[in-house]
Amino acid sequence: MPVPVVLDCDPGHDDAIAIMLAAADPAIDLLAITTVAGNQTLERTTLNARRVCTVAGITGVPIAAGCARPLVQPLLVAGDVHGDSGLDGPRFPEPTVDVVPEHAVDLIHRVLAEHPEPVTLVPTGPLTNVALLLTRHPDSARHISEIVLMGGSVGRGNRTPAAEFNMYVDPEAAGVVLDSGLPVTMCGLDVTHQALATPDVLDRLGRLDTRLSRVCVELMTYFASAYRRLWGFAAPPLHDPVAVARVIDPGIVRCVEANVVVELHGQYTRGATVVDLHRHMDRPVNARVAVELDVERFWDRVVAAVAVLGRRAP
Amino acid sequence: MPVPVVLDCDPGHDDAIAIMLAAADPAIDLLAITTVAGNQTLERTTLNARRVCTVAGITGVPIAAGCARPLVQPLLVAGDVHGDSGLDGPRFPEPTVDVVPEHAVDLIHRVLAEHPEPVTLVPTGPLTNVALLLTRHPDSARHISEIVLMGGSVGRGNRTPAAEFNMYVDPEAAGVVLDSGLPVTMCGLDVTHQALATPDVLDRLGRLDTRLSRVCVELMTYFASAYRRLWGFAAPPLHDPVAVARVIDPGIVRCVEANVVVELHGQYTRGATVVDLHRHMDRPVNARVAVELDVERFWDRVVAAVAVLGRRAP
Amino acid sequence: MPVPVVLDCDPGHDDAIAIMLAAADPAIDLLAITTVAGNQTLERTTLNARRVCTVAGITGVPIAAGCARPLVQPLLVAGDVHGDSGLDGPRFPEPTVDVVPEHAVDLIHRVLAEHPEPVTLVPTGPLTNVALLLTRHPDSARHISEIVLMGGSVGRGNRTPAAEFNMYVDPEAAGVVLDSGLPVTMCGLDVTHQALATPDVLDRLGRLDTRLSRVCVELMTYFASAYRRLWGFAAPPLHDPVAVARVIDPGIVRCVEANVVVELHGQYTRGATVVDLHRHMDRPVNARVAVELDVERFWDRVVAAVAVLGRRAP
Amino acid sequence: MPVPVVLDCDPGHDDAIAIMLAAADPAIDLLAITTVAGNQTLERTTLNARRVCTVAGITGVPIAAGCARPLVQPLLVAGDVHGDSGLDGPRFPEPTVDVVPEHAVDLIHRVLAEHPEPVTLVPTGPLTNVALLLTRHPDSARHISEIVLMGGSVGRGNRTPAAEFNMYVDPEAAGVVLDSGLPVTMCGLDVTHQALATPDVLDRLGRLDTRLSRVCVELMTYFASAYRRLWGFAAPPLHDPVAVARVIDPGIVRCVEANVVVELHGQYTRGATVVDLHRHMDRPVNARVAVELDVERFWDRVVAAVAVLGRRAP
Repeated sequence: MPVPVVLDCDPGHDDAIAIMLAAADPAIDLLAITTVAGNQTLERTTLNARRVCTVAGITGVPIAAGCARPLVQPLLVAGDVHGDSGLDGPRFPEPTVDVVPEHAVDLIHRVLAEHPEPVTLVPTGPLTNVALLLTRHPDSARHISEIVLMGGSVGRGNRTPAAEFNMYVDPEAAGVVLDSGLPVTMCGLDVTHQALATPDVLDRLGRLDTRLSRVCVELMTYFASAYRRLWGFAAPPLHDPVAVARVIDPGIVRCVEANVVVELHGQYTRGATVVDLHRHMDRPVNARVAVELDVERFWDRVVAAVAVLGRRAP
Repeated sequence: MPVPVVLDCDPGHDDAIAIMLAAADPAIDLLAITTVAGNQTLERTTLNARRVCTVAGITGVPIAAGCARPLVQPLLVAGDVHGDSGLDGPRFPEPTVDVVPEHAVDLIHRVLAEHPEPVTLVPTGPLTNVALLLTRHPDSARHISEIVLMGGSVGRGNRTPAAEFNMYVDPEAAGVVLDSGLPVTMCGLDVTHQALATPDVLDRLGRLDTRLSRVCVELMTYFASAYRRLWGFAAPPLHDPVAVARVIDPGIVRCVEANVVVELHGQYTRGATVVDLHRHMDRPVNARVAVELDVERFWDRVVAAVAVLGRRAP
Repeated sequence: MPVPVVLDCDPGHDDAIAIMLAAADPAIDLLAITTVAGNQTLERTTLNARRVCTVAGITGVPIAAGCARPLVQPLLVAGDVHGDSGLDGPRFPEPTVDVVPEHAVDLIHRVLAEHPEPVTLVPTGPLTNVALLLTRHPDSARHISEIVLMGGSVGRGNRTPAAEFNMYVDPEAAGVVLDSGLPVTMCGLDVTHQALATPDVLDRLGRLDTRLSRVCVELMTYFASAYRRLWGFAAPPLHDPVAVARVIDPGIVRCVEANVVVELHGQYTRGATVVDLHRHMDRPVNARVAVELDVERFWDRVVAAVAVLGRRAP
Repeated sequence: MPVPVVLDCDPGHDDAIAIMLAAADPAIDLLAITTVAGNQTLERTTLNARRVCTVAGITGVPIAAGCARPLVQPLLVAGDVHGDSGLDGPRFPEPTVDVVPEHAVDLIHRVLAEHPEPVTLVPTGPLTNVALLLTRHPDSARHISEIVLMGGSVGRGNRTPAAEFNMYVDPEAAGVVLDSGLPVTMCGLDVTHQALATPDVLDRLGRLDTRLSRVCVELMTYFASAYRRLWGFAAPPLHDPVAVARVIDPGIVRCVEANVVVELHGQYTRGATVVDLHRHMDRPVNARVAVELDVERFWDRVVAAVAVLGRRAP
C-alpha cells in the first residue's frame, strides 16, 4: 500500500526533483502539493510548482498556495542559490496546471480530514504552513501519521554557519513543529550533503534522453554552479528528495532518535537545530534524525522517477 | 456614525465589562466578539463570552472561538487573577447565546470583507487571533482601520516585573501586530492602572440596582480581592474597557506617538514592550501609546453602558 | 563613628557632587576615590576626579584609575549628557591632586585589607571595577560591609527605554555584583529622579557665594541644559549623590527588599534591572532597592557639604 | 630559536600531556604555567599542575594559580570526564614543586613585560585568566605575539550539542579574547578529535617503559573509559596538546582564516563558536581555525616529549 503524502514545498531546484519523486514513485500516493515562501516568494514558488507539474506531466494532484511570509519574522529568500525565478536554468513552457482556490493550510486540513488513513506530511521548505495548520486546525494533528521534513542539521548550517536555510527562514514555525508531540523525522544537511548530483548522476539522467530528463539536467547544472560558487561544492546536494526517499523506503535514510530543539534566541545561532545525540541534556526524544544516506538506492529511485515521468510526459 | 468594531477578548473580569461597553455604547457598532485563550483556556473564555452576552442581553452579535494556544509557546493562564472559571465571583445562568460554527479568524476575515467601511479591531487578550488573521488572511489588512489593543506597558509589567500579561502570553503575536504597518494604539498598564474600580465606582454601579449591575459589582469585588492579594492594590484596575473607551471617544485616553517593540529574546524580560518615548533609539514611530486616562469620563461611559444594558436585559 | 567608604566613580557632573558629599559629610570616612570608564573615557573621568578634588580642596584621599572598558563589551560613553570632557560647564584650574600609581582594583583591595573595619563600597559608575575586584581578589568580599550603588531602575531606563546608563554600559559587571551574595543597595532612577537640582536648589548653593559653590552651580546649569534637551526635564536629577546620602543617613533613602536581576540577553532590554517588587518570580531577595527620597534632607546634606568645602577650599 | 610560551591550563588529563609536551619539546621555551578553574576547581587544577610537574621532573618553570571562577557565570566543572580529582587514574606522589605567591594574571603580566621578545599564550582551559589579563593589564597585549588556544569547534560541541567545554564554561571570556584584536589560533574539536590516543599510541608510550610513561598510559586509560562512556569514542581525544603542537610546528595543524564569534545569548547554544568558513556573514577574519591534524607528526612529538622527560625524571 503506497503511503499517502502531502508535499509542502518552496520550489526550488531540489524541490522540483522532490515533486517528481513523490509523484512518480509507486510507494507514495501523492494527495496534494502545497507551496510556501522560502527559496523564493510565494508567487514564484507557486508558479514553479505549476511549472514542474506541467513539464513532468503531473496532473490530478491539487496544488495550493500557502503562507507568503514566516510566522513572526520577515521573509528571506535564497535568490543567490535558486536564481531570481527560484528555478533558474531551464526554460519552462507556459504552465497548464493551475492551483486550486484554497489556502494551502485549508487544503491540507481538508485532505487530512477526508483521507481514510493518517497521512504523512513532507515539508521541504520553511515550516510556516505546517505550523499554521497546527495552530489554525489543531484537530488536524490526529490525521497526521508523521512529519518527514527536510531541514536543520546535526552539525553546521548552510545559510549561516549555525543554521540551515529552512530553519533559519522560520525558526518559530520549526519550534512549533518540533514541540507538537507528533512524530517528526528530520532529514538535515548531514544526509542531504550525501545526495550529491555528481557527473555520474547527471550522466544517468542524461541517458534517459527525454525532455524531462534534459530539464532535470539543466536544473542540476544551474544548481551545481551555485553550490560551487557559494560553498565550493564539487557537486550540488539534492536536499529535498531525501525526505521523500525516507518515506518511500525508510531503509534509504538511516535515523537515530534524539531530542531536537531550535534556537530562537541566539545572536549568531538563530535557527540552529540543536541535536542531543548523546542524551546529555536531559530533554526527551522528540525526533528521528537522519544520519546516513544509502546513496545508491537514493539515486536509483530518483532516476527511476524521472524515467517514468519522462516516458509519460507530454 | 458609530465606529464598526470587532472585539477580540479572553473574558476575564475586565473583558466582561469591555464587552458590555462595546455592545451598549452608541459610539460603537459591535460587529463580532471573538475569543482567544489567555486569562483562561479557550473553552472557558468562550463560555464566559457567552455568559456575559446572556446576562447582559447582548444578542445579534456573532461570537466565535479562536486560537486555543499562542503562536509559538505553550499557553499560560491567569487563574490566580480570574479564578478557575476565568470569571469567578457571580453565579451565571445557563448561557442562551451560542457561538457561530466558524473559527474566530475566519469570522473576522469575513466580517472585515463584508463590511462597507474599514473596521477597528479591539483585542483585549493575547494577540494570537490577530496575528493569525494577518498571516492567514493577509488581505484583511486593508479592511482594518486601526488596532486599539489593551496590553503592554510603558513602564513595569504585571505578569513579570517586565511584562504585561497579554504580551507575556504571546510575545510573538504581539511582534507580528506591531510590525504589521497597521495603525496600532496600545492601551497599557500605565493608563489601565488609572481605571480603578474604587468603592465610589462600585457605589455608582450598585445604585443602578439591576440584575446586571449586581453581577458587575460581584465581578469587581472578586477582582478587587485578587488585586489586593497579588499586587497590594486598594482597588482593581479595569484594563480592557480602556481600549474600548479609546475607540468610543479618543479624548478619554490621551496618547503619544512612539516606537514600540516587544522583547522576544530576554531571559527575564520576554514580552516586555519597549516604548521609545524620547525617540533615542532611531526606530520609526509605529504606535500610539496611551499615557493618560480621563478617569471621570471613562467611568461615566462604563456606568452608562451597564445602565442601558441593565434596563434592556432579561 | 563615620562609615568607612570607597567611592568608585566616573565623573561626570553628578559624580562631582557625590565626591564632595562623600568627602565633606561627617558621617563618612572617605578612604579612597577610584575611577572607571563610563560617562567618559577613563582618562577623562580620572582627570575629572583630580579636578574636582583640586577645586574642592579634597586632599589626603588617594585617587586611583581603574578599568578603561567594560568586562565584556566595548565602552560606550555619555558625551551627550556630560560633554566632551565629561565635566563640561565650568573652567577648572590645573589639577594639583595626583593619582596614586596603583590600579583602582588593587588600591581598593589594599584599602579593604588594611582597614580595621569592613568598608562600604559606593559605586556610582559602571560596575566594572567592583566586578573585577571580586574576580581578581575574591578575598576582598569579606572586608566589604555593603555595596551601595547608583544604577538601575525599578521602572524605565534612561540610556534606552529599558536600561539605565551604568547598567547598560557594563551589564555583565552588574550581574557579577548582584550575584555576589554581598549586601547590595540599589539607588536607581526611581529615587535619583527625585533629586532634582531645581532653581531653588541652585539658589541655595548660589547664596553660599564661594568659588566652589559657583563651580557647582555651573556644573548643574550645564547638566540642566543636557537633561532639558535629551529628556525634557525641567531640572536635572543629581543621581550619584543619592547613593552617598543613603550611606550618610539611611533614613534619607527608603528601600524595600527585592530580587534584582540584570537582563544580559535581550535584543531591546540589555542592561535592564528587573526588580521583583511583588515577589512573584520565585527568586530570593538579593538587594535593597531605593524607592523614596527624603528630598529636603538630601539637599540639606548636599548644600552643607558644598558649604563646608567651600569655606575650606583654596 | 624556541618560541617563548606561557601555558594557561586546567589539568585535566589532556592538559597534563600538554604540560609535558610544552616543557620537553625543544621548539618551546616554557616561561610559566598558570592554572584556572575548569576541568575541576582551581584548587584541584593547581594541585594537578604541581603533580604533573613533580612526576615529570619539570622544575624551574613558575606555576601560579589564577581565577577560581568564570568572569560572569558560576563555575561548572567536568568531574564526569576527569574524575573527582580532575586527574583520576594514576596515583601521584606528594608534589615537590610549589606555586609562586602571585596571581596567575600578575605572573603572566610580569613574564610578558620582562621577556625580551613577544610571547605566545597557550590557553588550554576556559579563557578566564586571559580575559582578565587583557582587562586588568591592557598593556600586556603588546607583548603577546599570538594566542593559540584549545577550545571551540567548527561543528558540534561536546559539553552541549552546540558548545565545547572550555567555551561553555566561560563564554564571556572567550568573547573578550576573540574581540581583542590579537592574533588568535583556535584549535577546536575538529582537530582535537583527530588526536586519538589509540591502542597503538598507548603501545608506543608503554614501550618507553619509564615511570612517567606508565603514568601517561594510566592517564589515557582513565580518559579512554570516560570518553567511551560519555560519547562512545573508541579512543580518547587528547585535546590540549594539539594547541601546543601547533606552536611547536605550525605544519602539524593546518589552519584556515575565518571570523569566529562566540554565542553569548542563545537558549540552547550558549558558548557555541560560530565559524564563518565560507565568508557569508560579512564579519572580518579574526582567527586562524585549525581544520586538520598531521596525526603522525603530532604523536611523534608527544611520544618524544614523554621519552625525554621520562629519562630525565626522578
